[in-house]
Amino acid sequence: MATYNAPLRDISFCMQELLDLEKIRALPGCEEITKDLVDAILTEAAKLCENILQPINQSGDTEGCTWDKGVVRTPKGFKEAYQAFVDGGWSSLACDPTYGGQGLPESVSIVTEEMICASNMSFSLYPGLTRGAYILLHTHGTEELKNRFLPKMVEGTWSGTMCLTEAHCGTDLGLLRTKAVPQQDNTYLVTGTKIFISSGEHDLTENIIHFVLARTPDAPSGIKGVSLFLVPKYWVDEQGNVGNANGVTCASIEHKMGIKGSATCVMTFENARGYLVGDLHHGVSNMFAMMNNERLAVGSQGLGIAEVAYQNALAYAKDRVQGRSLTGTKHPDKPADPILVHPDVRRMLLTMKAYNEGNRMLGCWIAQHLDISHRASDKRARQDADDLVQLMTPVIKAFLSDCGYEVANLAIQVLGGHGYIKEYGLEQFARDARISQIYEGTNGVQALDFVGRKLPAHMGRYLRQFFHPALAFIKEHEANPVLTEFFPLFTKAVTRLQQATTYLATASLKNADEAGAASVDYLRLFALTVHAYLWARAVLVATPKLSSDESVFYQSKIDTARFFYTKLLPQGSSLYANIMAGAKPLMDMKEEAFGPF
Amino acid sequence: MATYNAPLRDISFCMQELLDLEKIRALPGCEEITKDLVDAILTEAAKLCENILQPINQSGDTEGCTWDKGVVRTPKGFKEAYQAFVDGGWSSLACDPTYGGQGLPESVSIVTEEMICASNMSFSLYPGLTRGAYILLHTHGTEELKNRFLPKMVEGTWSGTMCLTEAHCGTDLGLLRTKAVPQQDNTYLVTGTKIFISSGEHDLTENIIHFVLARTPDAPSGIKGVSLFLVPKYWVDEQGNVGNANGVTCASIEHKMGIKGSATCVMTFENARGYLVGDLHHGVSNMFAMMNNERLAVGSQGLGIAEVAYQNALAYAKDRVQGRSLTGTKHPDKPADPILVHPDVRRMLLTMKAYNEGNRMLGCWIAQHLDISHRASDKRARQDADDLVQLMTPVIKAFLSDCGYEVANLAIQVLGGHGYIKEYGLEQFARDARISQIYEGTNGVQALDFVGRKLPAHMGRYLRQFFHPALAFIKEHEANPVLTEFFPLFTKAVTRLQQATTYLATASLKNADEAGAASVDYLRLFALTVHAYLWARAVLVATPKLSSDESVFYQSKIDTARFFYTKLLPQGSSLYANIMAGAKPLMDMKEEAFGPF
Repeated sequence: MATYNAPLRDISFCMQELLDLEKIRALPGCEEITKDLVDAILTEAAKLCENILQPINQSGDTEGCTWDKGVVRTPKGFKEAYQAFVDGGWSSLACDPTYGGQGLPESVSIVTEEMICASNMSFSLYPGLTRGAYILLHTHGTEELKNRFLPKMVEGTWSGTMCLTEAHCGTDLGLLRTKAVPQQDNTYLVTGTKIFISSGEHDLTENIIHFVLARTPDAPSGIKGVSLFLVPKYWVDEQGNVGNANGVTCASIEHKMGIKGSATCVMTFENARGYLVGDLHHGVSNMFAMMNNERLAVGSQGLGIAEVAYQNALAYAKDRVQGRSLTGTKHPDKPADPILVHPDVRRMLLTMKAYNEGNRMLGCWIAQHLDISHRASDKRARQDADDLVQLMTPVIKAFLSDCGYEVANLAIQVLGGHGYIKEYGLEQFARDARISQIYEGTNGVQALDFVGRKLPAHMGRYLRQFFHPALAFIKEHEANPVLTEFFPLFTKAVTRLQQATTYLATASLKNADEAGAASVDYLRLFALTVHAYLWARAVLVATPKLSSDESVFYQSKIDTARFFYTKLLPQGSSLYANIMAGAKPLMDMKEEAFGPF
Repeated sequence: MATYNAPLRDISFCMQELLDLEKIRALPGCEEITKDLVDAILTEAAKLCENILQPINQSGDTEGCTWDKGVVRTPKGFKEAYQAFVDGGWSSLACDPTYGGQGLPESVSIVTEEMICASNMSFSLYPGLTRGAYILLHTHGTEELKNRFLPKMVEGTWSGTMCLTEAHCGTDLGLLRTKAVPQQDNTYLVTGTKIFISSGEHDLTENIIHFVLARTPDAPSGIKGVSLFLVPKYWVDEQGNVGNANGVTCASIEHKMGIKGSATCVMTFENARGYLVGDLHHGVSNMFAMMNNERLAVGSQGLGIAEVAYQNALAYAKDRVQGRSLTGTKHPDKPADPILVHPDVRRMLLTMKAYNEGNRMLGCWIAQHLDISHRASDKRARQDADDLVQLMTPVIKAFLSDCGYEVANLAIQVLGGHGYIKEYGLEQFARDARISQIYEGTNGVQALDFVGRKLPAHMGRYLRQFFHPALAFIKEHEANPVLTEFFPLFTKAVTRLQQATTYLATASLKNADEAGAASVDYLRLFALTVHAYLWARAVLVATPKLSSDESVFYQSKIDTARFFYTKLLPQGSSLYANIMAGAKPLMDMKEEAFGPF
């Protein structure tokens, strides 16, 4: 069975050494966010994850959720674990104190999320969706609705969902058919069927608050006729009393490749009563308050799974003896050398390690800016921080989830046949991670959002929030001897990214398919360049500390940076070539030429 | 549910247009191998696969194999399908007529194997292992053993296994502990436990013939003390009568990520009686007669799964309407455009198509040389052909299985959420394909075999069998206008591969870890260059036929070649950079620096 130890030392490096925790503490409402407080919170989170959530991860996969006449049961132990989660106050961590939240910054929340996903991704989806629903209602709800629904969601006794997809429409929400008919009392009766609804029905909470996209009778066709409704499973009256069932039923649950402990539901709404949230016909854009949060959360899923996969592959590689080092026996006392001596095993492990630590730096960097965007007193500071968050949201969603799957698969490969059988728990990581590349908008959709919306937004304004610090870094450190071996590679990567960006901007003006054709490669090129920037900063932080008590840790940072620069960053040259090859090789192909033959 | 149509047109292109079927017909024993005969055989194979094997693929995954007190049952329908397989003569296709085989060439066998794997990979393992065991006994058995065991294996009433792995030894067979104690009557009593034994126990055949690696009491330690034994489930006397159970039991079966219809067994041998096969202490090298066949078969698994995944993803992409083309509505009659209009969906589909058709060309090319190596009257011709087969066996095993998984995952991605649920059958393809990268020697082990054994063998003699035709092709066609757009890219790829080869040969002389560090990247670089060679040949074949009745098919070949050259071959630049970065970034890392932190 797999084990998990929360990577507290590396999280601390990201939050407190690479980034400056004082920047968070300087924000209004964050005055108490000291190193000691953060460490104490994360130590408690680690205990929850290691001792309660991780032990029911594999059994949850084996048992799965069950459906019987509309009733959904989560796997054994999930109820108790959820209660421990609620009792520990984890549902209210980064919520508004007005509604009972603890008001902690996103910077703290995002790293606890990584741990929760690492220890039990299926479990993470129940509170994860509630968190998104909380943000949605907090952003777009009336005071009255917020007062009525948020406190119970914050304390975790009610959960939330997002109901978007229908059988015939996923990415293209303009096609959706669910109806919402206005009533005299300002409520709406919602009728329709939604699919792929995570946590749509389950046995963990007393009530489930659905956020449903639907179309009012006189709405214009397409995406501009879609509105957002709050539809509780059990009606909640104006005094907050929970009443009768509300025409919402779970028609079935999906049988899936993974995340089997998470109930993925077909939800039927039949004259279910609900409230409009936000303005009429602004449902899809309002929904993005939730969606953007979920996209960052999906990044945490990718990183979490990748971390636990790495830990287990590494333990196996140290323990498993098989063959001898190519350069001569390393452990003559053993019948064979541990497989960690083999260069290709190291290549796999270092790929995992470099991606994970790079993605953790990236996640923490963006979480810090999310806090600044929410809390800074200076408007311009808020704006700049938000620009970076906007830019990076699709990058985090797509790149971290792609890495999650890649890393989980490398971990399987390190274990060989033992990685493929259920016993060791590694194959579950791959099956669980696979969905992250798909839901909350496939990674192809993220890439399209990135090149089609985020890049051109406000004449490229978002983009400056990466290029400015990267170019400033180059200017500041080009003569820094600490970075000598990395600098030419970093400047080359930044230059190449600039060239690709210019090409893309020009080419897609002439032909919109150019953006689509390059999108996935461009997003990956971008992410790798961001990693290069963060690894260079990490080297700057680690080098002066090489003679400290923690020399192993800091040397590891520098070695991993070197691995990243020499073995992972070179992907950029292929990606660049693919981008520059343009859309023609894709679009010239006639439909019938696809075969099959 | 997934569907499958055998790609007969493309198989015919590979066997009869790209390659010259007359070369096969010119071989002794192949005089009757005409186009008509081959077409007739493959049409029948397609019927078996489409109508009998494919319909029980998904149900076989859902039900899986079951174990009860040593008895293993295959999923519903497998017995009947196996009977149809045997009745159709498919078990005897490429077997020696001396033992009841049909004597057909490997070239025919390999393409039927692709179809069988595409339609039901779990099923394919039962006859697949028997085929390997047949080759093993045919190569190394005495006349007496061959006469006693081969006819029943050829007719399919007995099946075969290979019993290598033990709990503590997979790659490193020198560690194995199973004992074989010689008896007065020239038999041996075999005792030990083997794991991960495909088809170790099942209900499809009357008897199971195990080929077991074990160590005689006075054997030297390590790999040079390992011998090979034939151990039947039920004893077979000298007259061929099947007698009592023989101390072989199935202790349990594994629960796995995929290939759930294939029984992966823990096998216990307790004083099980067996015969030595081949010379004492030559067990591992003798086993390679079977292993090399299995490695090519694993390539067929990768290609088969990739083909069926492509077909289903393509069908979905043509059918699913969602969003509009970025360059304006293409199907105003529909509520949205089919997703095939989107550049990134095309990128995914063309990646699948290009890999599949390239791998089919590669597989057929090597199968043709396998036939020449077995049958040519000229010794030098046999030797040259065998050199190419030796060289390419790890490439086919690793690259085709890597592509199999990559393509299956791209197919899931095309379907989005529908790819992740069981209903559509796509996620099963990924789960099934994943094992191909692991068993019969992980792909890392293949890469090590490639750079460590195949490249340096006989002073690089094997390698010439690729570089000679590739360089001759360049010389012959450099002025050929048909290849103008491809030629600079092809020559660049060949030159780069030559440089990487030279670097590797030099660097690994100084430090063996250099070979290990570069191995996986080098194998992939090699495979892509071979694809480039085959695609250039395909363009030469297709271009003159562009005005034929089948212009769509031939234009598709040229378009796919263009996609390959501009969008897939560029991976080479990253792989090359990684190879040249050497082993240092991997090997300098101290064990404690791997963390976890």
